Amino acid sequence: MSFVRPEIAAMSGYTPGEQPQGGKFIKLNTNENPYPPSAAVRRAIEETLDRGLTKYPDPHATAFRLRASEVLGVPPDWILCGNGSDDILTIVTRAFVGQGQRLRLPYPSYVLYRTLAQLQGAEWEEVHFRSDWTLDDAFAAPRDDLRLAFLPNPNSPSGTTIPPERVLELAERLPCPLLVDEAYADFADQNCLNLVRENEKILVSRTMSKSYSLAGLRFGFLVAQPQVIEQLNKVKDSYNCDALAIAGATAAIDDQAWLAENRGKILATRQRLTEGMRSLGFDAIPSQANFVWCTRADQPVEALYQRLKEQRILVRYMNYPCWGDGLRITVGTEDQIEALLATLKLLLAP
Amino acid sequence: MSFVRPEIAAMSGYTPGEQPQGGKFIKLNTNENPYPPSAAVRRAIEETLDRGLTKYPDPHATAFRLRASEVLGVPPDWILCGNGSDDILTIVTRAFVGQGQRLRLPYPSYVLYRTLAQLQGAEWEEVHFRSDWTLDDAFAAPRDDLRLAFLPNPNSPSGTTIPPERVLELAERLPCPLLVDEAYADFADQNCLNLVRENEKILVSRTMSKSYSLAGLRFGFLVAQPQVIEQLNKVKDSYNCDALAIAGATAAIDDQAWLAENRGKILATRQRLTEGMRSLGFDAIPSQANFVWCTRADQPVEALYQRLKEQRILVRYMNYPCWGDGLRITVGTEDQIEALLATLKLLLAP
Repeated sequence: MSFVRPEIAAMSGYTPGEQPQGGKFIKLNTNENPYPPSAAVRRAIEETLDRGLTKYPDPHATAFRLRASEVLGVPPDWILCGNGSDDILTIVTRAFVGQGQRLRLPYPSYVLYRTLAQLQGAEWEEVHFRSDWTLDDAFAAPRDDLRLAFLPNPNSPSGTTIPPERVLELAERLPCPLLVDEAYADFADQNCLNLVRENEKILVSRTMSKSYSLAGLRFGFLVAQPQVIEQLNKVKDSYNCDALAIAGATAAIDDQAWLAENRGKILATRQRLTEGMRSLGFDAIPSQANFVWCTRADQPVEALYQRLKEQRILVRYMNYPCWGDGLRITVGTEDQIEALLATLKLLLAP
Repeated sequence: MSFVRPEIAAMSGYTPGEQPQGGKFIKLNTNENPYPPSAAVRRAIEETLDRGLTKYPDPHATAFRLRASEVLGVPPDWILCGNGSDDILTIVTRAFVGQGQRLRLPYPSYVLYRTLAQLQGAEWEEVHFRSDWTLDDAFAAPRDDLRLAFLPNPNSPSGTTIPPERVLELAERLPCPLLVDEAYADFADQNCLNLVRENEKILVSRTMSKSYSLAGLRFGFLVAQPQVIEQLNKVKDSYNCDALAIAGATAAIDDQAWLAENRGKILATRQRLTEGMRSLGFDAIPSQANFVWCTRADQPVEALYQRLKEQRILVRYMNYPCWGDGLRITVGTEDQIEALLATLKLLLAP
């Protein structure tokens, strides 16, 4: 197809984690929550089905924004809803970054940010994390063509966080908006939501996929100052969230008791996974997310990933040039993690 | 917000038709289908709820593509699914049109195409329909920076079509891909699906919002040659369709008996609406869509739109510079259309 833009033709495209549609896998590769969502989600979806699907949905997902406003303590017009947080990241990139301009991201982090730059015909530059997963001032260095910075916090694959006071410092120095991607923030001790009031350059994105167990529903949102939201509204598709997703997400965020209980279970199992992997000879840094990044000084781990897959256990194998490889393992149920640890123990036995 | 791209800051943004979320309106303004979708849709959605929403959906909506392939008679890898056909139009625009390049559309037609150009920082040019709603060769004229042409067929607001043989002729002359937006094609006598095999430059988009009564679900798709689909796959969000939408859309397209029956009802009421409006002194051109474009030589119709709205009947008022104003009226149920005609008769009484 010779008509496609050269930037697109040159791309290989973003490859999401494997999503086997059949077969029985213990699926610990794409950071889905292992527990079903709040029962209120299904009730809300069925009530919406009762009202019917023939009409277009509310273009601004007002019901969600009103409820999220109360839960998060920000006004409704500080919230923009999206078809998953991927949609939010796309909207933000398109709003700020033109062709030939530049975005910045830390390395290693979420590969999709590069894809978003490529799609815009934009450049990107990666600022390496320090070996302790902190970020030095290079991340905030001025540069004429810089239009947007992405900071996943907690980061993937590391599960580490940059503390809010440091994020504010970086944002204040940056010559452009800073998107703090808080996909995993519900599993962390701290988050940057309160920083949005401090500086209009700080935008915080969230997803319902992980902490609310709704990856199948596609719902994410952004918190930013209203003059920012007003501009981003022009970029989004008019009806980017469907009626069932709006209803389900609204019910989910309304059930904070469910969230607290689910979070407690995930954090306990995360601790077990971290200790279990360490006892098997992995380096596993303390995680603030629903996954743990596990590396080995003594051997590459790709073969382990393959052998786990043969045993129908899927984890995410990642190999970062200049950084090394590792397994990013989602916190599953207690039983799933025990099965993983037992299988790994056998695979590693001499 | 001074960081937003100047093209975005300068935009007013696309305004979708009014979507009142409360109150009792006879809603004939956004071409929704007045009848509920096939009962199979709800069953499929509930089965998906039984399986759960915790996992990411199939990134390629394989179930839908397999079923649509059989119904439409094209191979599955000729189909790309989207979060409504708006998503499809966005993907296509981003794939072909870079900043400063140009897209072409007929005038008057769907205003969103301009918005898509603006978001890309691209130019657009409008080729006026002839007064009989045909298109002359200017629509296919060569131009160096032209990268994409949009042809809504049937067109909105007119409800008229360009015959497939003429579309093929235009596509062959055009120096760029031609997106035939067939949002309303299920209500027409002919469509351009078979042209996709003839020329890789022809792309046909469809939506489940209108003819399948699923505007609330957000599902659309594109039919194009596989080398085109392969490129467009790089541009879409990985998980652009959610699990419930995939299941619902698959069940809907599977129920062709429902479609045939629904289409029959809409076409009969369209005839009644057309004749009724003519008898009230409107010019109503024969429509191939699920709406009728009604104009008056004797007076502007904005006041009628307003007075209908006061009576809780919503129609779409449109005013095209150099073309005049009119009411675009969606084909509702028989009862809704009788109520509209009776109300208009009173409003127009001397």
